[in-house]
Amino acid sequence: MEHTIGVDIGGTQTRVAAVEEGQILARRAFPTRGIREVERAIREVLVEVGWPQPTAIGVGAPAPMDMRAGRILGCPNLPHWNGVAVTQDLGRAFGCPVSLANDATCAAIGELAYGCRARDFVYLTWSTGIGGGVVSGGRVVWGASGQAGEIGHIVLEPDGPPCACGKRGCLEALAGGASLARRAAAELGTPLSARELVERAAHDAAARRLIASACRALGQGIAILWEILEPERIVLGGGLTGSWATLGPQVLSAARAMARGEPRLERTRLGDDVGLLGAAALPSHLPTDWWGGYSPSA
Amino acid sequence: MEHTIGVDIGGTQTRVAAVEEGQILARRAFPTRGIREVERAIREVLVEVGWPQPTAIGVGAPAPMDMRAGRILGCPNLPHWNGVAVTQDLGRAFGCPVSLANDATCAAIGELAYGCRARDFVYLTWSTGIGGGVVSGGRVVWGASGQAGEIGHIVLEPDGPPCACGKRGCLEALAGGASLARRAAAELGTPLSARELVERAAHDAAARRLIASACRALGQGIAILWEILEPERIVLGGGLTGSWATLGPQVLSAARAMARGEPRLERTRLGDDVGLLGAAALPSHLPTDWWGGYSPSA
Repeated sequence: MEHTIGVDIGGTQTRVAAVEEGQILARRAFPTRGIREVERAIREVLVEVGWPQPTAIGVGAPAPMDMRAGRILGCPNLPHWNGVAVTQDLGRAFGCPVSLANDATCAAIGELAYGCRARDFVYLTWSTGIGGGVVSGGRVVWGASGQAGEIGHIVLEPDGPPCACGKRGCLEALAGGASLARRAAAELGTPLSARELVERAAHDAAARRLIASACRALGQGIAILWEILEPERIVLGGGLTGSWATLGPQVLSAARAMARGEPRLERTRLGDDVGLLGAAALPSHLPTDWWGGYSPSA
Repeated sequence: MEHTIGVDIGGTQTRVAAVEEGQILARRAFPTRGIREVERAIREVLVEVGWPQPTAIGVGAPAPMDMRAGRILGCPNLPHWNGVAVTQDLGRAFGCPVSLANDATCAAIGELAYGCRARDFVYLTWSTGIGGGVVSGGRVVWGASGQAGEIGHIVLEPDGPPCACGKRGCLEALAGGASLARRAAAELGTPLSARELVERAAHDAAARRLIASACRALGQGIAILWEILEPERIVLGGGLTGSWATLGPQVLSAARAMARGEPRLERTRLGDDVGLLGAAALPSHLPTDWWGGYSPSA
């Protein structure tokens, strides 16, 4: 029986869970700080479920990382994690193999293991930023160094608005929640969250235009994924999908206009746990032949 | 020892080869007609190399197809192949397994088996049209029904020029050889092939602008592939790469401006044989668990 621990480090909240066959047996959630807080939460859930130690630990983080080394690299959003050798440190602390991956890739693994379970799909997070993970033939598309799936940073408008990544016109700069909020402040003169902007669109034409343009950009990105990967479906999660009744039809209509065939979109059935469950399933989805991660026997 | 036959059905020319461990032992090339001509050429190369029968036959074609059924679907460019059950017909004729795939996917398989041999790369054909194939972790990304890799049909300009596929602003409509020739005729007032247009760009600003805009579009497409797939490299083949000394630097510069990291581009070292060699390698790269193709034992 696998006794795995999933760790989902978020920009604001960190979540830790003991997972057995896709079921969360115990969980903790707390404001993101550093590795000590994660260690403590892991010890708490281990006690709660009565496991002497975990079989494996999987960690997802929204940060640049050296996957082979299992180390998080400089990330302004996670100051306590800069340079932390996550897999070494947690591996020594708990005496088990530990693996680390991008949070959106973990979410795709969550879908693969416990959600849609399709062989060919793309998972997309539509939230403050836009991220993703690709599954082909039942396997994660990792890319040469584990950085594949950066769907938020495909350039749709080479002369478009600047993106936090330094480029211009990225999908994230056109449709991400943070950029939507920024454009709302600039164009409507009110600071609004993306969610408030969606509500306002019900009775405000300017808000409606902003939303429509974001949905069009996301639909274009989805159509691009469709042509390149021919997934069975695109699974979406993240805060903005909470307004799917309003946004979904606009995204789908744009995607279908720009793809041959009929892209199929659906919301994740795993809700906010998709990344946490995926982190727990990460160790069994890493190709062991060359992949990093800490193993006590290594 | 594998004794495979590769068949590369092109819009104008069909090529057939007997291939052993990546070496072409005998070959035929002739104007594309139908399956009888292919059968005859296969018999000729079999006699030439002294094989009583092939171990397997792989066929690549630039046409819509039902890969599970091994059948080519309606394609105006290949009138003699519409509806032909390629794998059944050749399988019965030669008593061996036969598989069929898109020609650009075959070219990617050629690169995987005998060219760059990388684990993570994208192959791109830059010719009359633009096609491609994706390899991840040493395996072909097929998509749900074998249609993945349609890189020519990612929409870059939703309000751009019409594409032969019925959409607007596809990469192929912005950078494919046929569309370049069409734009040259319209904007320069002379019918020019893409190659002639490249030559003319040496001393003609209008031709130079057309070429630059095509290179920019291709670079944007490559940057998109880079962010989604993080390939080790992008390998290019096809007629327009014959002018790589002029075009390559412009494509690379656009790709690097629109990608994080440094996309690596190279021309295929297999030249015009990349698709033919890939067709011969196709049978050993099809996932047999669900994939079509004709097998005499089935």
